[in-house]
Amino acid sequence: MINTLTKLLGPRHVLTGDDARPYGRDWMGVYVAQPLAVLRPANTAEVSQIVKIAANFKCPIVPIGGNTGLVGGTHAPNALMLSLERMNQIKDLNPSAQTVVAQAGAIVQNIDTAAAQSDLAFPLFFGARGSAMIGGALSTNAGGSNVLRYGNARALCLGLEVVLADGRIMNLMNALRKDNTGYDLKDLFIGAEGTLGIITAAVLKLVARPGEYATAMVAARSLPAALTLLNQLQIASGGMVEAFEFMPRTYMHRLQQKRPDLLPPLGYDQDFTILVELGATAPRDTQTQPDGSTPVASLLQNALLDAIETGLATDGVVASSASQRQNMWAIREAAAEITITDKPYVDTDVSVPLDQVETFLKTALARLEKLDSDATTNTVAHLGDGNLHFTVWPSIDAPEHHTEIRDMIDDLAVNLGGSFSAEHGIGLTKRATLARGKDPTSYAVMQSIKQALDPDNIMNPGKVLP
Amino acid sequence: MINTLTKLLGPRHVLTGDDARPYGRDWMGVYVAQPLAVLRPANTAEVSQIVKIAANFKCPIVPIGGNTGLVGGTHAPNALMLSLERMNQIKDLNPSAQTVVAQAGAIVQNIDTAAAQSDLAFPLFFGARGSAMIGGALSTNAGGSNVLRYGNARALCLGLEVVLADGRIMNLMNALRKDNTGYDLKDLFIGAEGTLGIITAAVLKLVARPGEYATAMVAARSLPAALTLLNQLQIASGGMVEAFEFMPRTYMHRLQQKRPDLLPPLGYDQDFTILVELGATAPRDTQTQPDGSTPVASLLQNALLDAIETGLATDGVVASSASQRQNMWAIREAAAEITITDKPYVDTDVSVPLDQVETFLKTALARLEKLDSDATTNTVAHLGDGNLHFTVWPSIDAPEHHTEIRDMIDDLAVNLGGSFSAEHGIGLTKRATLARGKDPTSYAVMQSIKQALDPDNIMNPGKVLP
Repeated sequence: MINTLTKLLGPRHVLTGDDARPYGRDWMGVYVAQPLAVLRPANTAEVSQIVKIAANFKCPIVPIGGNTGLVGGTHAPNALMLSLERMNQIKDLNPSAQTVVAQAGAIVQNIDTAAAQSDLAFPLFFGARGSAMIGGALSTNAGGSNVLRYGNARALCLGLEVVLADGRIMNLMNALRKDNTGYDLKDLFIGAEGTLGIITAAVLKLVARPGEYATAMVAARSLPAALTLLNQLQIASGGMVEAFEFMPRTYMHRLQQKRPDLLPPLGYDQDFTILVELGATAPRDTQTQPDGSTPVASLLQNALLDAIETGLATDGVVASSASQRQNMWAIREAAAEITITDKPYVDTDVSVPLDQVETFLKTALARLEKLDSDATTNTVAHLGDGNLHFTVWPSIDAPEHHTEIRDMIDDLAVNLGGSFSAEHGIGLTKRATLARGKDPTSYAVMQSIKQALDPDNIMNPGKVLP
Repeated sequence: MINTLTKLLGPRHVLTGDDARPYGRDWMGVYVAQPLAVLRPANTAEVSQIVKIAANFKCPIVPIGGNTGLVGGTHAPNALMLSLERMNQIKDLNPSAQTVVAQAGAIVQNIDTAAAQSDLAFPLFFGARGSAMIGGALSTNAGGSNVLRYGNARALCLGLEVVLADGRIMNLMNALRKDNTGYDLKDLFIGAEGTLGIITAAVLKLVARPGEYATAMVAARSLPAALTLLNQLQIASGGMVEAFEFMPRTYMHRLQQKRPDLLPPLGYDQDFTILVELGATAPRDTQTQPDGSTPVASLLQNALLDAIETGLATDGVVASSASQRQNMWAIREAAAEITITDKPYVDTDVSVPLDQVETFLKTALARLEKLDSDATTNTVAHLGDGNLHFTVWPSIDAPEHHTEIRDMIDDLAVNLGGSFSAEHGIGLTKRATLARGKDPTSYAVMQSIKQALDPDNIMNPGKVLP
């Protein structure tokens, strides 16, 4: 099989042994395996050929993009690993229709950079955007900080090309806003983590690029008050809120320990620090005033003064320079860094209905007290989406103890009408939780679809489903 | 079987003979058939029981909502027809999370009315919204005039409950903005037209209700100019454009003939009349000024003056009263009425990439000239979505001639990267077009999924797929 593949791709693009090894290690170093070979096709036709050859041998095939996943979704022992890295074209950018075509290997941030040349944006904004590839972002339905305004990866995808488990190419590459011609296959493959087919290209939706941002740190009175504030800001701004990120006191204290250089404008002792950002496109909001401010910043300033007056917030600072804005974001984006420096930790990615965030946090802390009263925790949340990254550092380093804590958190989210995987996906890490926590009928339907579309179970086997 | 069903539901809710007949006639009178019986369950458990009984007998089952479809999607000769009309509850409206739960039989407009009590909106806006039910709107992924801002039915649905072909109840009823726990089953059942299961309830997303609208009629210089104007308006208003509807000269002339009482403010002889509407939530846009105008109306006025100055438009009128606004909408909403009064007609529902609308219209008219030089046409378009309802009145009344015209239009849309069904769906009317026009691999995948989820083909058989 490797010989046939080498004939197809050329020896430079079939890597084995030491050359293949780096691909088999996920960026956290949690999942490490030697792939059978790493294949680097140049185009969709080659992907199709590879899959046909693999299907003949019933050999597992695992697609890999920027390798920035968090749930072991590309673990590939003894499998063919198919890297999309050479298929990185960004083309057909259409400013009037506000669309662009990207091959699966295009880096997420590069798509945004290309869009910026036409004053447009590709607003999928998450920590790993500088190395994540759009194929992986779509396969995992990536989210991030701007979902509140623009939706997740799914909402930004108009058309899709997929190579199926038997090598056929499914062409759904249209740039349409409305298309009701049969079942919504596009959304079935988005978020399927490569288990139903390999995403090779997409038509993406672009949006008007904000000319100015207004960014603030706010000390909310409580979490319900923060949600009210968010709704008020949406009304006052006509829907300009791009980010509404929550950092509790535990977050600020970890920041103080780990990154004392980043000075939070409202200090370390607020219970409910919120980073809020508005993005403005309209000249009436973006034109600099004689005093150097912008109307959108004044709008945010006035809304925050109102919020303080009505008791929703106790304090607030609007960034008055690019460097102040940058500092606010640096405080938020330090999340990964201030988390992974202490090990071992139990990291979660839950979502709950917007008005259940407070209940979730209170209950999780109370239950943790019983499981491990010496554990410490931290949280950072995309509050506008009800999405919390709740991290626990257990006092006891035992895998079953960690699992017990993780299950407690995931089950609590589900019991509150929430999700145990808001944006990271299932992969290997959450496969057991899926089997336990998903509505059993939905789970059975997933199995039927997998069986129908990949009967030999060669597409990224063992991920999502056993 | 009918006896068993009567025991389950009670005789009042199992209709046969004359009582059943009205359900078997679609509102256009095109598809007429006597159903075996019409069943009116009171809740999801009864729907599940009905489907289990029908599955035992391998008896076809056809769900029906408000019966406002346009493609024969509920044609049910010798089938059980399952009416959702009694399951019409609207409940759990949560103003802070901006969500509501609706049973499948809830009338679309009633959901919006319920939302209005909390200054929220359910912004699914199409002609039949006063009788269409949300289950049908989701099953057909209904669109309409506000898709530009708020998306189609799919985009407004957070959670879903579905009764499957074997009677099992699939519970995806969550109110989450982010949920990556496995395959996106919700979107698979939305738009499946009842062929994979019966939607029984949904969690819906609500939005801030605009406090003021600014509505205008604009005479655009050309279609590309209109698209540029749309993009400029989006930037100037920060994304407040709710509707951007195009009516060509043929439309205005038909209006003049059929509804001379509706006086278009820019007259009947504009080539490119556009109805544009902005919806404003922010006090800075909605507060009435000393001269009686609102800031959002002034914003629109200024944008149109700019457009006239730069040559994108030749004329424009902003509505200065509620009755002027109502008149503008009455002109647009007369579309169905001024169309169906002359028969026979060939009605289509295509979409193309936003910048291909002009090419589509020019080419369609040129090709029609060759097929039927005495035919007349009309168009009304959701221009912001690239969605055109292009109608032809052929000069010859022969079914094969009509089919030839319809196929020409549908194929042209597909060849321009478009869709032959932008929002109405497939049903019976477009089944052959789907088989011919859909990417063959995508079509085969659809068949695999249907086979996997409804192996006995009892769920709305013959719709979408043969």
